[in-house]
Amino acid sequence: MTSPSNLANTLADDDRDAMATPFMKRLVRLVRAQDTHGSWDGKSDTDLLADFIVTKEQRRQMPIIGDPDPDVIWRLQIFYTCVGLEIEGHSGLVASSIVTMNPEGFGRVVLTTGRLVVLSKTLRDVHRFGFETLRKLTEAGTKLVDDAVIAIKAYPDVARAP
Amino acid sequence: MTSPSNLANTLADDDRDAMATPFMKRLVRLVRAQDTHGSWDGKSDTDLLADFIVTKEQRRQMPIIGDPDPDVIWRLQIFYTCVGLEIEGHSGLVASSIVTMNPEGFGRVVLTTGRLVVLSKTLRDVHRFGFETLRKLTEAGTKLVDDAVIAIKAYPDVARAP
Repeated sequence: MTSPSNLANTLADDDRDAMATPFMKRLVRLVRAQDTHGSWDGKSDTDLLADFIVTKEQRRQMPIIGDPDPDVIWRLQIFYTCVGLEIEGHSGLVASSIVTMNPEGFGRVVLTTGRLVVLSKTLRDVHRFGFETLRKLTEAGTKLVDDAVIAIKAYPDVARAP
Repeated sequence: MTSPSNLANTLADDDRDAMATPFMKRLVRLVRAQDTHGSWDGKSDTDLLADFIVTKEQRRQMPIIGDPDPDVIWRLQIFYTCVGLEIEGHSGLVASSIVTMNPEGFGRVVLTTGRLVVLSKTLRDVHRFGFETLRKLTEAGTKLVDDAVIAIKAYPDVARAP
């Protein structure tokens, strides 16, 4: 059986591993780059990403009426920007993104390189955009990047077509 | 030398030819499909598309401040819907479209089939969306469709990739 303190240690290890991935390192850099007044200088990387984490309990309490919170939209955009930049880091090809969203929290995000669609995703529940844990955040981002890189390798000429 | 009446005849011929293209026939059908109350039943096809025509003189007089007119946005969307449906008609592949626009009248439209980007266009000056003549309207639409169909033929497997 796992004792409570062992469980806490495991969670802390999990978070530390999650923060060490290339995706998360880039996400932290992107978020810090938006901090033009240095007001987050004292924050740890983990604290900086705190609002990306939405637990099941928090989700239940979040209203989905009215326009999505501008901060949520900002996080969603920075997440997909990070995916795009990681794709560029792996492939050397610029991924341009296009995101639509309606006030009901539905939308679509498409990332392309050349003539290739490297990511196409329907957005639902934008009001509650977030991930249960740091590990799930990095896993989700990394998977989108990996899938895009696989597509670019499968269709290299299309990914470079003007 | 062309006499004024000959010139008028030539323009009328031009319009008639323009209205006879597959693109324009579909555009008319799309516009009529939006007329749920039958209030445009008495309008000729040419009259129905009148607002798609914006002469140079009219362009100069159109303000580009404030949000673009909802009617302009509606026409822009119906134009690209028509492009998408014509692409489907030629290729048998569904083209899904994604359009973004900011209040300054800039935006982007992307049409995809499968994993292929069949159309990617930066939108400028959305406030003044329109074409000088019916002929220019059908030429613009038909060219976008033709280019997309050429891309699908060049990359048939990508256009069908899930």
